[in-house]
Amino acid sequence: MAGKKVLIVYAHQEPKSLNGSLKAIAVEELSKQGSDVTVSDLYDMQFEPRTTRTDIVGDLYNPEQFNYGVEAWEACKNGCLSEDLIEEQRKVKEADLLIFQFPLYWFSMPAIMKGWMDRVFIQGFAHDFPKCFDSGLLRYNKKALLSFTTGGDQGMYSKEGLSGDIRWVLWPMQHGILHFCGLSVLAPQICFAPEYVALEERKQMLSSWAKRLKTIWEEKPINCIPEWYYNI
Amino acid sequence: MAGKKVLIVYAHQEPKSLNGSLKAIAVEELSKQGSDVTVSDLYDMQFEPRTTRTDIVGDLYNPEQFNYGVEAWEACKNGCLSEDLIEEQRKVKEADLLIFQFPLYWFSMPAIMKGWMDRVFIQGFAHDFPKCFDSGLLRYNKKALLSFTTGGDQGMYSKEGLSGDIRWVLWPMQHGILHFCGLSVLAPQICFAPEYVALEERKQMLSSWAKRLKTIWEEKPINCIPEWYYNI
Repeated sequence: MAGKKVLIVYAHQEPKSLNGSLKAIAVEELSKQGSDVTVSDLYDMQFEPRTTRTDIVGDLYNPEQFNYGVEAWEACKNGCLSEDLIEEQRKVKEADLLIFQFPLYWFSMPAIMKGWMDRVFIQGFAHDFPKCFDSGLLRYNKKALLSFTTGGDQGMYSKEGLSGDIRWVLWPMQHGILHFCGLSVLAPQICFAPEYVALEERKQMLSSWAKRLKTIWEEKPINCIPEWYYNI
Repeated sequence: MAGKKVLIVYAHQEPKSLNGSLKAIAVEELSKQGSDVTVSDLYDMQFEPRTTRTDIVGDLYNPEQFNYGVEAWEACKNGCLSEDLIEEQRKVKEADLLIFQFPLYWFSMPAIMKGWMDRVFIQGFAHDFPKCFDSGLLRYNKKALLSFTTGGDQGMYSKEGLSGDIRWVLWPMQHGILHFCGLSVLAPQICFAPEYVALEERKQMLSSWAKRLKTIWEEKPINCIPEWYYNI
């Protein structure tokens, strides 16, 4: 939509992959609509996933015992975070919609993207207990969506399948990260087992993503509560 | 137990932290029993969490389109994985028990430990579809245990709490990683909100871990099926 800003956080090593194509389609489709699209291409940026002392510029709050959470929180309040984090936080602040594009690794996101969460969504920026979940700091008109590919097929990721219901995998990421920060969670975009399907089906995955993006601004968020995940 | 080998994969930046103490106690207690204990101290090793081209030594299987899973699998079969991965895999192969010691970050493990999973437990070493879950490649007499600290307290991590049942967080890690590789999963060791409790309670956390370790070799694994996690 014209005037809207989108941040795509993208974690795949290969532009020719399906993840690469899904990212490219999102850039194309959203730009066509007049949205301003920014991509954080984590592998290309060689994004640092480790939470260490170097994230804090200058003196530590407590040099006797390093506590990353406390130090990052203090540094955030005092403008002493490392430059790469400030830059990512700036992109998040400006965005109306965050899209995370990645291949599912071990029932979760790849380490490089987990590191983005660990380092960018710090206390004082994305939450500030008890300001979390519905009162998380990113709660103002910001939406977020996980778009990912899997190795296993849809049958494996069913309640009766070996890998269990795919929604069980979504809980830590959607509720534990996105909702925790106050973001409104849109339904995930999941491409099951693209490496094991015919070319035609992969094309279908790309076109249904493009189609969904045409009306993405009209979508209502999911109700991010246990019932959505566990049908309880 | 005498003659047994243990690998502790440890992810905390500060030796003086509770995680550091839990790790030290495990080393001490298990060594006292006569076990041979190895620690992979990930921050100290500056362990690389990113899955990239440099994990494969020499030519790629398909240089036209980089697929990490395929390349790592081929490199594993052909002995062309990078030295740091071969070293971690050697430690895993030798271990009778794997202990993962970490602070819970965002309903999961810190990125540096997620990267250890992404890069060490690759196809051909830890699984080889359909050799996964009960037929995973690490299924022979190898046990694994997650030992972690949380920010939120036990009430928050209850079924009715804001963060939901702690077992919902365990599913991707215990079932999706450890069980997927065929490991027998021991009950997790969880220290809730050590930063918010009195010193006496933190000491209690350490002593109950030490006590548990005295009989760790007698423990039966959990039944790692959906019922354990979701009571369904």
